[in-house]
Amino acid sequence: MKRPLIFLTNDDGVNARGLNLLIEAVRPYGRLIVVAPETVQSGMGHAITSNDPLYLRTVKESDDLSIYACSGTPVDCVKLGYDLIFADEQPVLNLSGINHGSNSAVSILYSGTMGAAIEASFYGAPSIGLSLTDHSEGADFDASLAFARKLIPDVLAADIREPLCLNVNIPVGRPESIRGWRVCRQNGGYWKETFVCRKAPHGKDYYWLTGDFCNTEPEATDTDEWALANGYISIVPVQIDLTNYRQMPLVERILR
Amino acid sequence: MKRPLIFLTNDDGVNARGLNLLIEAVRPYGRLIVVAPETVQSGMGHAITSNDPLYLRTVKESDDLSIYACSGTPVDCVKLGYDLIFADEQPVLNLSGINHGSNSAVSILYSGTMGAAIEASFYGAPSIGLSLTDHSEGADFDASLAFARKLIPDVLAADIREPLCLNVNIPVGRPESIRGWRVCRQNGGYWKETFVCRKAPHGKDYYWLTGDFCNTEPEATDTDEWALANGYISIVPVQIDLTNYRQMPLVERILR
Repeated sequence: MKRPLIFLTNDDGVNARGLNLLIEAVRPYGRLIVVAPETVQSGMGHAITSNDPLYLRTVKESDDLSIYACSGTPVDCVKLGYDLIFADEQPVLNLSGINHGSNSAVSILYSGTMGAAIEASFYGAPSIGLSLTDHSEGADFDASLAFARKLIPDVLAADIREPLCLNVNIPVGRPESIRGWRVCRQNGGYWKETFVCRKAPHGKDYYWLTGDFCNTEPEATDTDEWALANGYISIVPVQIDLTNYRQMPLVERILR
Repeated sequence: MKRPLIFLTNDDGVNARGLNLLIEAVRPYGRLIVVAPETVQSGMGHAITSNDPLYLRTVKESDDLSIYACSGTPVDCVKLGYDLIFADEQPVLNLSGINHGSNSAVSILYSGTMGAAIEASFYGAPSIGLSLTDHSEGADFDASLAFARKLIPDVLAADIREPLCLNVNIPVGRPESIRGWRVCRQNGGYWKETFVCRKAPHGKDYYWLTGDFCNTEPEATDTDEWALANGYISIVPVQIDLTNYRQMPLVERILR
Protein backbone atom coordinates (compact mmCIF):
# COMPACT_ATOMS: atom_id res chain seq x y z
CA MET A 1 0.00 0.00 0.00
CA LYS A 2 1.19 3.48 -0.90
CA ARG A 3 2.15 5.73 1.98
CA PRO A 4 0.02 8.87 2.36
CA LEU A 5 0.90 11.91 0.26
CA ILE A 6 1.94 15.17 1.92
CA PHE A 7 2.20 18.38 -0.08
CA LEU A 8 4.75 21.07 0.80
CA THR A 9 5.38 24.57 -0.46
CA ASN A 10 6.75 27.88 0.85
CA ASP A 11 7.32 31.48 -0.15
CA ASP A 12 11.06 31.77 0.44
CA GLY A 13 11.82 29.61 -2.59
CA VAL A 14 12.76 26.01 -3.32
CA ASN A 15 16.28 26.42 -1.95
CA ALA A 16 15.26 27.98 1.37
CA ARG A 17 16.64 26.38 4.50
CA GLY A 18 13.27 26.46 6.31
CA LEU A 19 11.64 24.37 3.57
CA ASN A 20 14.45 21.87 3.36
CA LEU A 21 14.56 21.37 7.12
CA LEU A 22 10.79 20.86 7.10
CA ILE A 23 11.10 18.29 4.30
CA GLU A 24 13.52 16.26 6.44
CA ALA A 25 11.27 16.55 9.50
CA VAL A 26 8.19 15.38 7.60
CA ARG A 27 9.68 12.46 5.66
CA PRO A 28 8.72 9.88 8.32
CA TYR A 29 5.02 10.68 7.87
CA GLY A 30 4.53 9.94 4.15
CA ARG A 31 5.55 10.46 0.56
CA LEU A 32 6.26 14.11 -0.14
CA ILE A 33 5.58 16.26 -3.18
CA VAL A 34 7.08 19.72 -3.02
CA VAL A 35 6.16 22.50 -5.42
CA ALA A 36 7.93 25.68 -4.39
CA PRO A 37 8.77 28.98 -6.09
CA GLU A 38 12.07 29.27 -7.99
CA THR A 39 12.69 32.65 -6.37
CA VAL A 40 11.91 34.42 -3.12
CA GLN A 41 8.20 35.32 -3.07
CA SER A 42 7.91 37.02 0.31
CA GLY A 43 5.02 39.42 0.61
CA MET A 44 3.16 37.91 -2.35
CA GLY A 45 0.06 37.18 -0.27
CA HIS A 46 -2.60 35.40 -2.31
CA ALA A 47 -1.20 36.64 -5.66
CA ILE A 48 -1.53 34.47 -8.77
CA THR A 49 0.17 34.81 -12.14
CA SER A 50 -2.63 35.63 -14.52
CA ASN A 51 -0.89 37.62 -17.27
CA ASP A 52 2.23 35.50 -17.79
CA PRO A 53 2.80 31.82 -18.43
CA LEU A 54 4.27 29.61 -15.73
CA TYR A 55 7.36 27.44 -15.99
CA LEU A 56 7.84 24.28 -13.99
CA ARG A 57 11.20 22.62 -13.35
CA THR A 58 11.73 19.13 -11.98
CA VAL A 59 14.34 19.37 -9.25
CA LYS A 60 14.12 15.76 -8.14
CA GLU A 61 11.72 12.85 -8.67
CA SER A 62 11.57 9.68 -6.58
CA ASP A 63 8.91 7.50 -4.95
CA ASP A 64 9.30 9.14 -1.57
CA LEU A 65 10.20 12.71 -2.42
CA SER A 66 9.61 14.76 -5.55
CA ILE A 67 10.51 18.41 -5.77
CA TYR A 68 9.38 20.87 -8.43
CA ALA A 69 10.20 24.55 -8.81
CA CYS A 70 7.73 26.98 -10.34
CA SER A 71 8.38 30.40 -11.83
CA GLY A 72 5.31 31.87 -10.15
CA THR A 73 3.90 32.71 -6.74
CA PRO A 74 3.25 30.39 -3.78
CA VAL A 75 -0.43 30.16 -4.72
CA ASP A 76 0.57 29.25 -8.30
CA CYS A 77 2.64 26.41 -6.79
CA VAL A 78 -0.41 25.05 -5.00
CA LYS A 79 -2.56 25.23 -8.11
CA LEU A 80 0.11 23.55 -10.26
CA GLY A 81 0.51 20.85 -7.63
CA TYR A 82 -3.17 20.06 -7.21
CA ASP A 83 -4.49 20.67 -10.71
CA LEU A 84 -1.53 19.40 -12.77
CA ILE A 85 1.17 17.41 -10.97
CA PHE A 86 -0.74 15.16 -8.58
CA ALA A 87 -4.20 15.80 -10.02
CA ASP A 88 -5.27 12.16 -9.49
CA GLU A 89 -4.09 11.89 -5.90
CA GLN A 90 -5.29 13.65 -2.79
CA PRO A 91 -2.69 14.67 -0.19
CA VAL A 92 -3.62 14.06 3.44
CA LEU A 93 -1.84 17.22 4.60
CA ASN A 94 -0.53 20.52 3.22
CA LEU A 95 2.44 22.32 4.74
CA SER A 96 3.75 25.77 3.88
CA GLY A 97 7.03 27.03 5.28
CA ILE A 98 8.95 27.12 7.46
CA ASN A 99 8.86 30.82 6.68
CA HIS A 100 11.39 33.41 7.82
CA GLY A 101 9.50 36.20 9.61
CA SER A 102 6.22 36.62 11.44
CA ASN A 103 2.85 36.11 9.80
CA SER A 104 0.83 37.08 12.85
CA ALA A 105 -1.95 39.68 12.93
CA VAL A 106 -2.60 41.50 9.62
CA SER A 107 0.64 40.14 8.16
CA ILE A 108 -1.39 37.08 7.20
CA LEU A 109 -2.75 39.15 4.30
CA TYR A 110 0.71 39.91 2.87
CA SER A 111 2.08 36.44 3.54
CA GLY A 112 2.89 34.17 0.62
CA THR A 113 3.31 31.34 3.12
CA MET A 114 -0.25 31.76 4.34
CA GLY A 115 -1.58 32.53 0.84
CA ALA A 116 -0.35 29.07 -0.18
CA ALA A 117 -1.63 27.41 3.01
CA ILE A 118 -5.09 28.94 2.53
CA GLU A 119 -5.19 28.01 -1.17
CA ALA A 120 -4.15 24.43 -0.40
CA SER A 121 -6.91 24.10 2.20
CA PHE A 122 -9.50 24.70 -0.56
CA TYR A 123 -8.62 21.24 -1.93
CA GLY A 124 -9.80 19.51 1.24
CA ALA A 125 -6.84 18.29 3.30
CA PRO A 126 -5.77 20.14 6.48
CA SER A 127 -3.29 22.89 5.80
CA ILE A 128 -0.62 24.36 8.08
CA GLY A 129 1.47 27.47 7.52
CA LEU A 130 4.57 27.60 9.71
CA SER A 131 6.53 30.79 10.32
CA LEU A 132 9.47 31.54 12.56
CA THR A 133 9.54 35.17 13.69
CA ASP A 134 13.16 35.61 12.65
CA HIS A 135 14.23 37.13 9.32
CA SER A 136 17.93 36.46 9.79
CA GLU A 137 19.72 34.05 7.48
CA GLY A 138 21.14 32.07 10.38
CA ALA A 139 17.75 31.74 12.10
CA ASP A 140 17.49 28.83 14.54
CA PHE A 141 14.68 26.53 13.30
CA ASP A 142 15.01 23.94 16.09
CA ALA A 143 11.98 25.09 18.09
CA SER A 144 9.88 25.29 14.90
CA LEU A 145 10.93 21.78 13.89
CA ALA A 146 10.27 20.40 17.37
CA PHE A 147 6.73 21.82 17.27
CA ALA A 148 6.19 20.57 13.69
CA ARG A 149 7.09 17.07 14.95
CA LYS A 150 4.31 17.35 17.55
CA LEU A 151 1.68 19.16 15.46
CA ILE A 152 1.92 17.14 12.25
CA PRO A 153 1.23 13.68 13.76
CA ASP A 154 -1.52 15.22 15.94
CA VAL A 155 -3.26 16.63 12.86
CA LEU A 156 -2.73 13.42 10.86
CA ALA A 157 -4.22 11.35 13.70
CA ALA A 158 -7.23 13.61 14.26
CA ASP A 159 -10.58 12.85 12.71
CA ILE A 160 -11.12 16.20 10.97
CA ARG A 161 -14.24 16.35 8.84
CA GLU A 162 -14.12 19.97 7.75
CA PRO A 163 -11.65 22.30 6.02
CA LEU A 164 -8.89 23.32 8.40
CA CYS A 165 -6.14 25.88 7.90
CA LEU A 166 -3.76 26.87 10.69
CA ASN A 167 -1.55 29.96 10.88
CA VAL A 168 1.28 28.85 13.19
CA ASN A 169 3.94 31.33 14.31
CA ILE A 170 6.93 30.35 16.42
CA PRO A 171 8.80 32.88 18.56
CA VAL A 172 12.57 33.20 18.45
CA GLY A 173 14.38 31.01 20.95
CA ARG A 174 15.76 27.59 21.71
CA PRO A 175 13.13 24.81 22.09
CA GLU A 176 13.52 24.79 25.89
CA SER A 177 12.76 28.53 26.09
CA ILE A 178 9.36 28.21 24.37
CA ARG A 179 6.60 28.34 26.99
CA GLY A 180 4.11 26.26 25.01
CA TRP A 181 1.41 27.00 22.45
CA ARG A 182 -1.79 29.01 22.40
CA VAL A 183 -4.80 28.69 20.09
CA CYS A 184 -5.62 32.35 19.60
CA ARG A 185 -7.27 34.94 17.41
CA GLN A 186 -5.67 37.29 14.89
CA ASN A 187 -4.56 40.51 16.58
CA GLY A 188 -5.91 43.83 15.24
CA GLY A 189 -3.66 46.48 13.74
CA TYR A 190 -1.93 47.53 10.54
CA TRP A 191 1.50 48.37 9.13
CA LYS A 192 2.60 51.98 8.71
CA GLU A 193 5.45 52.46 6.27
CA THR A 194 8.50 54.68 6.33
CA PHE A 195 9.87 54.76 2.81
CA VAL A 196 13.63 54.91 2.51
CA CYS A 197 14.50 57.02 -0.55
CA ARG A 198 17.77 56.49 -2.42
CA LYS A 199 19.20 57.69 -5.71
CA ALA A 200 20.19 55.02 -8.23
CA PRO A 201 23.49 55.34 -10.14
CA HIS A 202 21.43 56.24 -13.23
CA GLY A 203 19.96 59.19 -11.33
CA LYS A 204 16.43 58.02 -10.59
CA ASP A 205 15.00 57.99 -7.06
CA TYR A 206 13.85 54.66 -5.71
CA TYR A 207 12.06 53.69 -2.52
CA TRP A 208 12.36 50.81 -0.09
CA LEU A 209 9.27 49.84 1.82
CA THR A 210 10.05 49.56 5.55
CA GLY A 211 7.23 49.45 8.03
CA ASP A 212 6.27 49.24 11.66
CA PHE A 213 3.34 47.28 12.98
CA CYS A 214 0.77 49.43 14.80
CA ASN A 215 -0.95 47.23 17.35
CA THR A 216 -4.47 48.61 17.83
CA GLU A 217 -5.20 46.32 20.77
CA PRO A 218 -1.99 46.14 22.81
CA GLU A 219 -3.98 45.15 25.91
CA ALA A 220 -5.45 41.96 24.38
CA THR A 221 -4.21 38.67 25.88
CA ASP A 222 -6.04 36.24 23.56
CA THR A 223 -4.24 37.10 20.32
CA ASP A 224 -1.32 35.82 18.27
CA GLU A 225 0.68 38.99 18.99
CA TRP A 226 0.28 38.46 22.72
CA ALA A 227 1.25 34.79 22.49
CA LEU A 228 4.42 35.51 20.51
CA ALA A 229 5.43 38.44 22.72
CA ASN A 230 5.07 36.15 25.73
CA GLY A 231 7.11 33.24 24.45
CA TYR A 232 4.26 31.04 23.19
CA ILE A 233 3.72 29.52 19.76
CA SER A 234 0.56 31.08 18.28
CA ILE A 235 -1.97 28.96 16.39
CA VAL A 236 -4.81 30.76 14.61
CA PRO A 237 -7.40 28.67 12.75
CA VAL A 238 -8.13 30.55 9.53
CA GLN A 239 -11.27 31.10 7.45
CA ILE A 240 -11.72 33.23 4.33
CA ASP A 241 -15.19 34.73 4.57
CA LEU A 242 -14.29 38.45 4.61
CA THR A 243 -17.92 39.56 4.96
CA ASN A 244 -18.40 42.14 7.69
CA TYR A 245 -21.84 40.87 8.73
CA ARG A 246 -22.18 43.46 11.49
CA GLN A 247 -21.91 46.32 8.97
CA MET A 248 -24.57 45.07 6.56
CA PRO A 249 -27.37 47.20 8.11
CA LEU A 250 -25.05 50.26 8.13
CA VAL A 251 -24.43 49.85 4.40
CA GLU A 252 -28.16 49.45 3.76
CA ARG A 253 -28.77 52.75 5.63
CA ILE A 254 -26.00 54.58 3.74
CA LEU A 255 -27.53 53.63 0.39
CA ARG A 256 -31.20 54.31 1.13
CA MET B 1 -11.01 76.31 1.90
CA LYS B 2 -9.46 73.27 0.24
CA ARG B 3 -11.84 70.78 -1.30
CA PRO B 4 -11.74 67.29 0.24
CA LEU B 5 -9.10 64.85 -0.95
CA ILE B 6 -10.10 61.58 -2.63
CA PHE B 7 -7.56 58.83 -3.26
CA LEU B 8 -7.81 56.54 -6.27
CA THR B 9 -5.94 53.47 -7.37
CA ASN B 10 -6.59 50.29 -9.36
CA ASP B 11 -4.94 47.05 -10.45
CA ASP B 12 -5.29 47.32 -14.22
CA GLY B 13 -2.66 50.05 -14.35
CA VAL B 14 -2.53 53.83 -14.62
CA ASN B 15 -3.63 53.84 -18.27
CA ALA B 16 -6.65 51.60 -17.78
CA ARG B 17 -9.94 52.88 -19.13
CA GLY B 18 -11.86 51.90 -15.97
CA LEU B 19 -9.63 54.09 -13.79
CA ASN B 20 -9.72 57.05 -16.14
CA LEU B 21 -13.50 56.93 -16.47
CA LEU B 22 -13.77 56.76 -12.66
CA ILE B 23 -11.47 59.79 -12.33
CA GLU B 24 -13.78 61.82 -14.56
CA ALA B 25 -16.86 60.64 -12.64
CA VAL B 26 -15.35 61.55 -9.25
CA ARG B 27 -13.87 64.96 -10.10
CA PRO B 28 -17.00 66.87 -8.95
CA TYR B 29 -16.60 65.51 -5.39
CA GLY B 30 -13.10 66.74 -4.51
CA ARG B 31 -9.42 67.00 -5.30
CA LEU B 32 -8.05 63.71 -6.56
CA ILE B 33 -4.74 62.00 -5.99
CA VAL B 34 -4.21 58.88 -8.05
CA VAL B 35 -1.38 56.41 -7.40
CA ALA B 36 -1.75 53.48 -9.76
CA PRO B 37 0.54 50.72 -11.00
CA GLU B 38 2.61 51.33 -14.14
CA THR B 39 1.64 47.89 -15.44
CA VAL B 40 -1.27 45.48 -15.21
CA GLN B 41 -1.35 43.96 -11.71
CA SER B 42 -4.39 41.70 -11.97
CA GLY B 43 -4.40 38.82 -9.54
CA MET B 44 -1.86 40.44 -7.22
CA GLY B 45 -4.17 40.27 -4.21
CA HIS B 46 -2.60 41.87 -1.15
CA ALA B 47 0.97 41.46 -2.47
CA ILE B 48 3.63 44.00 -1.55
CA THR B 49 7.08 44.54 -3.01
CA SER B 50 9.43 43.66 -0.20
CA ASN B 51 12.57 42.49 -2.01
CA ASP B 52 12.86 45.16 -4.71
CA PRO B 53 12.88 48.94 -4.61
CA LEU B 54 9.90 50.88 -5.92
CA TYR B 55 9.93 53.59 -8.56
CA LEU B 56 7.42 56.40 -8.68
CA ARG B 57 6.68 58.50 -11.76
CA THR B 58 4.73 61.76 -11.81
CA VAL B 59 2.23 61.52 -14.65
CA LYS B 60 0.47 64.82 -13.91
CA GLU B 61 0.36 67.29 -11.03
CA SER B 62 -2.24 69.99 -10.52
CA ASP B 63 -4.37 71.39 -7.68
CA ASP B 64 -7.39 69.30 -8.60
CA LEU B 65 -5.87 66.14 -10.01
CA SER B 66 -2.46 64.56 -9.52
CA ILE B 67 -1.56 61.20 -11.00
CA TYR B 68 1.44 59.06 -10.07
CA ALA B 69 2.50 55.69 -11.45
CA CYS B 70 4.31 53.16 -9.30
CA SER B 71 6.41 50.20 -10.39
CA GLY B 72 4.86 47.96 -7.73
CA THR B 73 1.59 46.35 -6.75
CA PRO B 74 -1.76 47.98 -5.98
CA VAL B 75 -1.05 47.71 -2.23
CA ASP B 76 2.35 49.37 -2.79
CA CYS B 77 0.48 52.23 -4.49
CA VAL B 78 -1.68 52.72 -1.40
CA LYS B 79 1.32 52.68 0.93
CA LEU B 80 3.26 55.14 -1.25
CA GLY B 81 0.22 57.40 -1.41
CA TYR B 82 -0.52 57.45 2.31
CA ASP B 83 2.96 57.20 3.79
CA LEU B 84 4.90 59.29 1.24
CA ILE B 85 2.92 61.40 -1.24
CA PHE B 86 0.08 62.87 0.84
CA ALA B 87 1.41 61.86 4.24
CA ASP B 88 0.21 65.12 5.86
CA GLU B 89 -3.29 64.99 4.46
CA GLN B 90 -6.12 62.57 5.09
CA PRO B 91 -8.36 61.60 2.18
CA VAL B 92 -12.09 61.44 2.90
CA LEU B 93 -12.58 58.50 0.54
CA ASN B 94 -10.56 55.75 -1.18
CA LEU B 95 -11.59 54.28 -4.52
CA SER B 96 -10.07 51.30 -6.30
CA GLY B 97 -11.07 50.42 -9.86
CA ILE B 98 -13.10 50.30 -11.92
CA ASN B 99 -11.69 46.82 -12.38
CA HIS B 100 -12.22 44.58 -15.39
CA GLY B 101 -13.57 41.24 -14.12
CA SER B 102 -15.46 39.95 -11.12
CA ASN B 103 -14.13 40.14 -7.58
CA SER B 104 -17.04 38.33 -6.00
CA ALA B 105 -16.79 35.30 -3.71
CA VAL B 106 -13.26 33.97 -3.09
CA SER B 107 -11.92 36.11 -5.96
CA ILE B 108 -11.60 38.88 -3.38
CA LEU B 109 -8.45 37.11 -2.16
CA TYR B 110 -6.75 37.21 -5.58
CA SER B 111 -7.94 40.70 -6.40
CA GLY B 112 -5.42 43.53 -6.59
CA THR B 113 -8.36 45.94 -6.73
CA MET B 114 -9.67 44.69 -3.39
CA GLY B 115 -6.15 44.30 -1.93
CA ALA B 116 -5.71 48.03 -2.50
CA ALA B 117 -9.19 48.90 -1.22
CA ILE B 118 -8.62 46.88 1.97
CA GLU B 119 -5.17 48.39 2.53
CA ALA B 120 -6.49 51.92 2.02
CA SER B 121 -9.24 51.31 4.58
CA PHE B 122 -6.56 50.74 7.26
CA TYR B 123 -5.79 54.48 7.07
CA GLY B 124 -9.26 55.45 8.27
CA ALA B 125 -11.36 56.78 5.39
CA PRO B 126 -14.08 54.66 3.77
CA SER B 127 -12.82 52.55 0.93
CA ILE B 128 -14.67 51.22 -2.10
CA GLY B 129 -13.46 48.65 -4.63
CA LEU B 130 -15.45 48.72 -7.87
CA SER B 131 -15.38 45.86 -10.38
CA LEU B 132 -17.30 45.26 -13.57
CA THR B 133 -17.78 41.57 -14.32
CA ASP B 134 -16.51 41.96 -17.88
CA HIS B 135 -12.92 41.23 -18.90
CA SER B 136 -13.31 42.43 -22.49
CA GLU B 137 -11.38 45.48 -23.66
CA GLY B 138 -14.49 47.17 -24.97
CA ALA B 139 -16.42 46.62 -21.71
CA ASP B 140 -19.33 48.98 -21.16
CA PHE B 141 -18.66 50.92 -17.93
CA ASP B 142 -21.84 53.04 -18.04
CA ALA B 143 -23.75 51.06 -15.41
CA SER B 144 -20.69 51.03 -13.12
CA LEU B 145 -20.26 54.79 -13.49
CA ALA B 146 -23.95 55.42 -12.90
CA PHE B 147 -23.78 53.45 -9.65
CA ALA B 148 -20.52 55.16 -8.62
CA ARG B 149 -22.32 58.50 -9.03
CA LYS B 150 -24.97 57.32 -6.55
CA LEU B 151 -22.74 55.44 -4.10
CA ILE B 152 -19.92 57.97 -3.74
CA PRO B 153 -22.04 60.96 -2.62
CA ASP B 154 -24.04 58.62 -0.35
CA VAL B 155 -20.86 57.46 1.38
CA LEU B 156 -19.43 60.99 1.55
CA ALA B 157 -22.66 62.27 3.12
CA ALA B 158 -22.95 59.47 5.67
CA ASP B 159 -21.74 59.85 9.23
CA ILE B 160 -19.48 56.79 9.33
CA ARG B 161 -17.50 56.44 12.55
CA GLU B 162 -15.77 53.14 11.90
CA PRO B 163 -13.55 51.60 9.23
CA LEU B 164 -15.57 50.70 6.16
CA CYS B 165 -14.49 48.79 3.07
CA LEU B 166 -16.94 47.79 0.35
CA ASN B 167 -16.49 45.16 -2.34
CA VAL B 168 -18.81 46.34 -5.13
CA ASN B 169 -19.34 44.22 -8.24
CA ILE B 170 -21.44 45.35 -11.17
CA PRO B 171 -22.99 42.85 -13.59
CA VAL B 172 -22.65 43.23 -17.34
CA GLY B 173 -25.41 45.26 -18.95
CA ARG B 174 -26.70 48.70 -19.82
CA PRO B 175 -27.68 50.86 -16.81
CA GLU B 176 -31.40 50.35 -17.48
CA SER B 177 -30.99 46.54 -17.38
CA ILE B 178 -29.52 46.54 -13.85
CA ARG B 179 -32.23 45.48 -11.36
CA GLY B 180 -30.75 47.39 -8.40
CA TRP B 181 -28.22 46.61 -5.68
CA ARG B 182 -27.98 44.12 -2.84
CA VAL B 183 -25.93 44.26 0.34
CA CYS B 184 -24.82 40.65 0.57
CA ARG B 185 -22.32 38.22 1.95
CA GLN B 186 -19.34 36.64 0.19
CA ASN B 187 -20.36 33.43 -1.57
CA GLY B 188 -18.53 30.21 -0.68
CA GLY B 189 -16.47 28.29 -3.20
CA TYR B 190 -13.07 28.09 -4.83
CA TRP B 191 -11.37 28.10 -8.23
CA LYS B 192 -10.28 24.89 -9.89
CA GLU B 193 -7.64 25.31 -12.57
CA THR B 194 -7.17 23.69 -15.94
CA PHE B 195 -3.62 24.42 -17.03
CA VAL B 196 -3.12 24.99 -20.74
CA CYS B 197 0.31 23.61 -21.68
CA ARG B 198 2.22 25.00 -24.67
CA LYS B 199 5.74 24.63 -26.00
CA ALA B 200 7.80 27.79 -26.32
CA PRO B 201 9.88 28.37 -29.49
CA HIS B 202 12.98 27.65 -27.36
CA GLY B 203 11.54 24.21 -26.56
CA LYS B 204 10.43 24.61 -22.95
CA ASP B 205 6.90 23.81 -21.84
CA TYR B 206 4.94 26.59 -20.25
CA TYR B 207 1.54 26.71 -18.59
CA TRP B 208 -1.33 29.17 -18.59
CA LEU B 209 -3.54 29.23 -15.53
CA THR B 210 -7.21 29.05 -16.55
CA GLY B 211 -9.81 28.27 -13.94
CA ASP B 212 -13.47 27.70 -13.28
CA PHE B 213 -15.26 28.85 -10.16
CA CYS B 214 -16.78 26.00 -8.13
CA ASN B 215 -19.76 27.42 -6.28
CA THR B 216 -20.17 25.38 -3.08
CA GLU B 217 -23.50 26.99 -2.22
CA PRO B 218 -25.37 27.39 -5.52
CA GLU B 219 -28.69 27.50 -3.67
CA ALA B 220 -27.83 30.58 -1.56
CA THR B 221 -29.81 33.75 -2.36
CA ASP B 222 -28.07 36.18 0.03
CA THR B 223 -24.63 36.18 -1.62
CA ASP B 224 -22.70 38.28 -4.11
CA GLU B 225 -22.74 35.44 -6.66
CA TRP B 226 -26.54 35.28 -6.49
CA ALA B 227 -26.90 39.05 -6.81
CA LEU B 228 -24.67 39.21 -9.89
CA ALA B 229 -26.27 36.18 -11.54
CA ASN B 230 -29.66 37.83 -11.04
CA GLY B 231 -28.82 41.23 -12.47
CA TYR B 232 -28.11 43.08 -9.21
CA ILE B 233 -25.03 45.02 -8.16
CA SER B 234 -23.45 43.20 -5.18
CA ILE B 235 -22.10 45.13 -2.20
CA VAL B 236 -20.16 43.17 0.44
CA PRO B 237 -18.83 45.05 3.47
CA VAL B 238 -15.37 43.64 4.14
CA GLN B 239 -13.39 42.88 7.30
CA ILE B 240 -9.97 41.27 7.64
CA ASP B 241 -10.10 39.14 10.79
CA LEU B 242 -9.46 35.70 9.29
CA THR B 243 -9.77 33.91 12.64
CA ASN B 244 -12.04 30.88 12.47
CA TYR B 245 -13.44 31.34 15.99
CA ARG B 246 -15.72 28.32 15.66
CA GLN B 247 -12.73 26.01 15.14
CA MET B 248 -10.71 27.13 18.15
CA PRO B 249 -12.01 24.31 20.43
CA LEU B 250 -11.36 21.75 17.65
CA VAL B 251 -7.74 22.87 17.39
CA GLU B 252 -7.36 22.71 21.18
CA ARG B 253 -8.66 19.12 21.07
CA ILE B 254 -6.34 18.13 18.19
CA LEU B 255 -3.28 19.32 20.13
CA ARG B 256 -4.11 17.91 23.59
